[in-house]
Amino acid sequence: MKTILLIGIGAGNPDHLTVQAIEALNAADVFFVVDKGARTADLIRLREAICARFIREPRYRVATIADPKRDRAPADYLAAVETWHQERAEAYESAIAKELEDGQTGAFLVWGEPALYDSTIRILDKVLACGRTAFECRVIPGISAVQALAAAHRIALNTIGGAVHVTTGRRIAEAVATGADTIVVMLDDGASLEAFPRRDFDIFWGAYLGTPDEVLVAGPASEVTDDILRLRAERRQAKGWIMDTYLLRRRPVSA
Amino acid sequence: MKTILLIGIGAGNPDHLTVQAIEALNAADVFFVVDKGARTADLIRLREAICARFIREPRYRVATIADPKRDRAPADYLAAVETWHQERAEAYESAIAKELEDGQTGAFLVWGEPALYDSTIRILDKVLACGRTAFECRVIPGISAVQALAAAHRIALNTIGGAVHVTTGRRIAEAVATGADTIVVMLDDGASLEAFPRRDFDIFWGAYLGTPDEVLVAGPASEVTDDILRLRAERRQAKGWIMDTYLLRRRPVSA
Repeated sequence: MKTILLIGIGAGNPDHLTVQAIEALNAADVFFVVDKGARTADLIRLREAICARFIREPRYRVATIADPKRDRAPADYLAAVETWHQERAEAYESAIAKELEDGQTGAFLVWGEPALYDSTIRILDKVLACGRTAFECRVIPGISAVQALAAAHRIALNTIGGAVHVTTGRRIAEAVATGADTIVVMLDDGASLEAFPRRDFDIFWGAYLGTPDEVLVAGPASEVTDDILRLRAERRQAKGWIMDTYLLRRRPVSA
Repeated sequence: MKTILLIGIGAGNPDHLTVQAIEALNAADVFFVVDKGARTADLIRLREAICARFIREPRYRVATIADPKRDRAPADYLAAVETWHQERAEAYESAIAKELEDGQTGAFLVWGEPALYDSTIRILDKVLACGRTAFECRVIPGISAVQALAAAHRIALNTIGGAVHVTTGRRIAEAVATGADTIVVMLDDGASLEAFPRRDFDIFWGAYLGTPDEVLVAGPASEVTDDILRLRAERRQAKGWIMDTYLLRRRPVSA
């Protein structure tokens, strides 16, 4: 039997790795790396640094999986994701069949928390559902960008007894409409950051969380959002990529 | 200057500790332990096991803070929590003043993730706001029960592109009413587990997550919720306490 480990490696700070993740890194014979092109060179370096630091006896191989192209502006979002997942599942399946022998352990390193806005669990489920490749699959949780954000700002995610609504950029308006008092936004390309009703919220924003490049801004959204947008554009330009996350907290209604 | 560390120690599995949390444990001169009475003896033991395993040179002291009594069924929930936080802040303040010298580091060990349904950040902010005690405060994120639940069931928290609504037992009905498709429930005493509309959801439930006593149940809520309630009552009776968490996922509307 083959084993596949999905290892959450935190949002960027190698110190966020758990003992369980370190043991999992050391158990892997093959690391599957999905090639997402040049813009993620920084992330690949960070991943290599994690392996170099935590793997006691490097005897692993790296197997690269070419990532199927994804339509980033599809007419039908869910259908496009579904197609892309299916293509990914086929690529993963053939890599697992080809690169991993029975009795061996393969691993996928996942930024942040594998259960939160990462497709690897879902894609491996698809591979298993096809029934042509058998393996045992285990998930090792990791510190998500949401947690890194809250720790960096030293805030609780929830208000007292309140709910925490974690969502994507494209769904902020929906969350605002339901009256959510805490909205955590991931996977926003900046467009949604422009559009929410600023006077109703405070914002706690962070980019490159947990890394030496970490940037934080917090304040009333009406006062700081333009600064965030400017900073976001600058840093993205300078580094070639940006990963950011933010929390919107509804301001108390004033009398 | 004094330093206070809030260390997230995961939901129960000592292997969930991060490298950062282990370093923080080793930096602490004084561990502040809030005495919550006899029912948490298991949790105290687990905490002691974590310290024994990860602290390289034990030279720390333990300072116990008596926990003010909390009204568990108040007429005004928010006001009661506010009063209780204020009393806690006073108890924390005097413990920090008395037990910690300048230049020393104190630590609070927090189950799960300090930013999620834990009051320590908020209470320490109150202490700082009083202005009588100064300290630097840092938060070290930890694997939450939500993450342990998702990993144990090997599921993604979100549906594709969907939101994740994390809430408390007393607010499930609200979340259901807004149409949320993924609702994660924490701090439910079992009452809310009885009350949500079962035929609309699948449930992924877990108790004592990450510990050797971990119990998991998953399935259509209409089929498994009674089993969960029975199991919950049995285990709670046997151990004297229970900590559980669950995810409700809205079932696709059938044709």
